Amino acid sequence: MSEVESFFKSAFSVDNVIFGFDGGDLKVLLIQRGAAPFRGKWALPGDLVYPNEDLDTAAERVLEQLTGLRGVYLEQVRTFGAVDRHPLGRVITIAYFSLIKVSDFALTPASFAQSAHWHSISDVGELAFDHNEILDICLQRLQRKVRNAPVGFELLPQKFTLTELQQLYESVLNLPKNKGLDKRNFRKKILSMNVLVECEEMQEGVAHRPAKLYQFDRERYDQFVAEGFSFDI
Amino acid sequence: MSEVESFFKSAFSVDNVIFGFDGGDLKVLLIQRGAAPFRGKWALPGDLVYPNEDLDTAAERVLEQLTGLRGVYLEQVRTFGAVDRHPLGRVITIAYFSLIKVSDFALTPASFAQSAHWHSISDVGELAFDHNEILDICLQRLQRKVRNAPVGFELLPQKFTLTELQQLYESVLNLPKNKGLDKRNFRKKILSMNVLVECEEMQEGVAHRPAKLYQFDRERYDQFVAEGFSFDI
Repeated sequence: MSEVESFFKSAFSVDNVIFGFDGGDLKVLLIQRGAAPFRGKWALPGDLVYPNEDLDTAAERVLEQLTGLRGVYLEQVRTFGAVDRHPLGRVITIAYFSLIKVSDFALTPASFAQSAHWHSISDVGELAFDHNEILDICLQRLQRKVRNAPVGFELLPQKFTLTELQQLYESVLNLPKNKGLDKRNFRKKILSMNVLVECEEMQEGVAHRPAKLYQFDRERYDQFVAEGFSFDI
Repeated sequence: MSEVESFFKSAFSVDNVIFGFDGGDLKVLLIQRGAAPFRGKWALPGDLVYPNEDLDTAAERVLEQLTGLRGVYLEQVRTFGAVDRHPLGRVITIAYFSLIKVSDFALTPASFAQSAHWHSISDVGELAFDHNEILDICLQRLQRKVRNAPVGFELLPQKFTLTELQQLYESVLNLPKNKGLDKRNFRKKILSMNVLVECEEMQEGVAHRPAKLYQFDRERYDQFVAEGFSFDI
């Protein structure tokens, strides 16, 4: 037993890459650390996992404590375990990413939420720990996933224009804005899958001619998949 | 500090779903446990991670100790951390899958390798711990991956016939043998990507007319991807 006991000296944490989409930009929610190690540095929101807590539960807790949101898109991505990644001892971290609608979002009064701030993906500097690597890997996962699963809609308001949807894809895929994807092809592709529903109302409060609003329809998507088709943008 | 110390009482392990393809069947390499807990049950090969060992290194070590193989396909899939998943304490496990060529494989003289045995995927009974769940998740990952990345070739001998390749896909995707995929369409699809090279020699030692042998060509595949195409079966 004593040989086995020497292994029970580790801890593990969850870290959550919370993506949002605002002002045409893909953003990530970061926390400015108030304590050592890496005091003052920006970091991914995360926490040690309690002894009696499942991993997904811990990731949901971190998200809810920070944003007040429950039941949003959350996916385990990869576990990072370099031997020297944490100064306090052997701590491996299970990385998740979440997709949230920025319009639903309000920072909670929790003390650590006060130091939270949205950063444009293109404007993230050096982060604490190995968090730049974790962010990169989660972004790559999102970039693959957004092309073959309807996860991009999690980042948009319930009702959106096709221009907003295209901007979302261009932003996630790091393509030039309004130029990265061919507008006609993009619209043809997305509408041909028949997973969007046209809303009765039009866009409001814009200077140009109001555009049509659309909603993603989960039932139509399930039908689309049941018929053997694959989401593909 | 004492509050933090209470978190440093966990251990973590790696478990490796080692897939092979033999006799037209997808197989998984399992170990019969010689000690408690779950003595006598079949389990995935795995081990606790040493305090000074990276996660990937631990997974490579388990694979090499068992099979003598290095540098084979290995991918981290998911971390499993249900609170009560291990009777000795809080142990989370990082699951990997490997793809090996059964023809390259020989069990090493290591003592735990003596109890290893290939099982057809369709013939895996109740495993120790949460290993049935881990196997299921890794199999699902392989099923997705084999369709959009050239990983299936890792399971075949260097030179293979198109019939063998089709049987591999049917077996991984759990489709009826020689009926699951339309033969003409399958051949057209795989050959149109131009990632296979026809070998000069033909199949040997078969009763029927010998078939052409092919090899997967990594350089052609890299070129195919660089041109913006995607592997898709």
